[in-house]
Amino acid sequence: MTERLDRARILAGQHGIDALLVTPGADLRYLTGYAAKPLERLTCLVVTQLRVQLVVPELERAAAEAAGVDMEIVTFGETDDPFALVADLVGNAEIVAVDDHMWASRVFALQEAMPEAGFVLGGQLVSDLRVVKEQSEVDALRAAGAAIDRVHARMGEWLRPGRTEREVGADIARAIIDEGHEQVDFVIVGSGPNGASPHHEVSDRVIQAGEPVVVDIGGTTPAGYCSDSTRNYVAGGEPDPGYVAMLEVLKQAQHAQREYARPGVTAESVDAVGRRIIAEAGYGDRFIHRTGHGIGQETHEEPYIVEGNGTELEPGMAFSIEPGIYVAGQWGARIEDIVVCTEDGIEVLNNTPRDLVRL
Amino acid sequence: MTERLDRARILAGQHGIDALLVTPGADLRYLTGYAAKPLERLTCLVVTQLRVQLVVPELERAAAEAAGVDMEIVTFGETDDPFALVADLVGNAEIVAVDDHMWASRVFALQEAMPEAGFVLGGQLVSDLRVVKEQSEVDALRAAGAAIDRVHARMGEWLRPGRTEREVGADIARAIIDEGHEQVDFVIVGSGPNGASPHHEVSDRVIQAGEPVVVDIGGTTPAGYCSDSTRNYVAGGEPDPGYVAMLEVLKQAQHAQREYARPGVTAESVDAVGRRIIAEAGYGDRFIHRTGHGIGQETHEEPYIVEGNGTELEPGMAFSIEPGIYVAGQWGARIEDIVVCTEDGIEVLNNTPRDLVRL
Repeated sequence: MTERLDRARILAGQHGIDALLVTPGADLRYLTGYAAKPLERLTCLVVTQLRVQLVVPELERAAAEAAGVDMEIVTFGETDDPFALVADLVGNAEIVAVDDHMWASRVFALQEAMPEAGFVLGGQLVSDLRVVKEQSEVDALRAAGAAIDRVHARMGEWLRPGRTEREVGADIARAIIDEGHEQVDFVIVGSGPNGASPHHEVSDRVIQAGEPVVVDIGGTTPAGYCSDSTRNYVAGGEPDPGYVAMLEVLKQAQHAQREYARPGVTAESVDAVGRRIIAEAGYGDRFIHRTGHGIGQETHEEPYIVEGNGTELEPGMAFSIEPGIYVAGQWGARIEDIVVCTEDGIEVLNNTPRDLVRL
Repeated sequence: MTERLDRARILAGQHGIDALLVTPGADLRYLTGYAAKPLERLTCLVVTQLRVQLVVPELERAAAEAAGVDMEIVTFGETDDPFALVADLVGNAEIVAVDDHMWASRVFALQEAMPEAGFVLGGQLVSDLRVVKEQSEVDALRAAGAAIDRVHARMGEWLRPGRTEREVGADIARAIIDEGHEQVDFVIVGSGPNGASPHHEVSDRVIQAGEPVVVDIGGTTPAGYCSDSTRNYVAGGEPDPGYVAMLEVLKQAQHAQREYARPGVTAESVDAVGRRIIAEAGYGDRFIHRTGHGIGQETHEEPYIVEGNGTELEPGMAFSIEPGIYVAGQWGARIEDIVVCTEDGIEVLNNTPRDLVRL
């Protein structure tokens, strides 16, 4: 963590930032190792060019120490003003950067406590560190990928005609934990027309024989890294040939994107490669979302694989490749793998079959 | 939900707020019934005196509709600017209020999109609605209280000398789900000296015979309401008489607070009643936190039962009464019940024994 903090201070200095303030969330965990809960009492990392301190409520000092926080801890009591305390630690700062997810109530309170300072977002600075994974982080993502693959491999135990999406989803959630995650982040079981809603979760709809089912699942491992993989299933019957043809197009698009991605190409060009294939097959207006998102300690982080993002891929960047085709009222399909950019291509962290899985 | 939105608009008008903007979180769920996930694409409720609209990403329209959102839904595509869209819907506003937990990145983007508007916090406005529970909410909290009581009543199945806090905590977590919650919010198993850290969670420490164990647990029910109750245990041996005497003081203080709380008394006076008893017994500097917090769709919300909060209790307010005494390096104890203010006193929603439970 010390090395990450050192790099954050250097970046802050280069950006003319006098103080970086980070409240609980993935940025705080990345920089300090402390997975503080986002509660109403202020916890705030204060990074200046002179020193690094962690402000915590007195009654959470022991929890912060138990998490191995390796810096000066400054506490405040139940009726103290923690914002005045932070302002005091910051001292005279012209530019104060706050983490992107800091609550509005805290931003305004800090602005009031430091009326002379200019406030900017510090998220990009931390993201620039987080976006390129260290080797230990790639290892953690690989383990997360293998864990969610084991859940997909067991889908035949649960996904059957006559069961509801909710019932199947509850079984999947238990398996996500059993196969090596600490937390279930999301379970999407989109049967038939529900598959056409990319962010559908589960419902009481009964799964029918022969209809397509989109299963998009993920969790967080004890090491704090996320998994996320989507596969397409059909149970107890033959799928419609129109759906099968559509899935074939999607498979080709996703394959082409995986073949294409490598260091030096832009995020948006990875999106374009798949979008062109889908559009040429006549489904252009049915691929209604970007190709993917970065992943690490958060399921969605930079780099976003989307039109307009000219970021060039670098070794160590981890992200999803997940094109989808959605036909409202009928069905949908999405194929999603997490990949990590290597020196000369990508490593694919999800490796269950991408074809339609017949159960 | 329509009635809550109507009341929010009336309050906004009274406060001179032209537009209230609410992003995913408990406030959005309270006002719309939509438990949107806090993801990177903007979801934002826009409440003006003229109309109520919900801005959602195009690919989440179906999810919002499935949640029963009963208002105009305005969507945007993957490469559109959602902040310009919100500014357009708001129109000419002098005062724009944002929810207290809105992300800094959104606050700044909205300020940039509406450079003429003054920005204030809107959380108090929504909190003023949420703090007084409707009958259906009290019923939901009562069910949550009974569910967590059933978990405490089963503690003898898991809490034994020779097991680690983490092992016991994992069993408790499963029981929290089995007894009627949808989500585990927190599990604190503080054995021996770990009991002296109020926000300790679990560790690999092995529980010893005869030592005190603080168990503070809670979850969220399918109806979306939270439970939270703390009890004190000793397993497989006799506790130290000094600890027993201390717990007796704590029990008297917590009892006095429950007897005292009623409509018209202030939140801080409830805190003072318990603090005086604990101080008179010589433990004043060991009661290191406030007496309690409100509870509803969030575990911690208003009213906070703390020195300096002159809010007068009203029927329908729900909160915890949880004094604690902590002796660093030795042990700690906390007794916590959720209560709801009634017309002439309180209803206590947790009803397992408050004495030391010997297992």
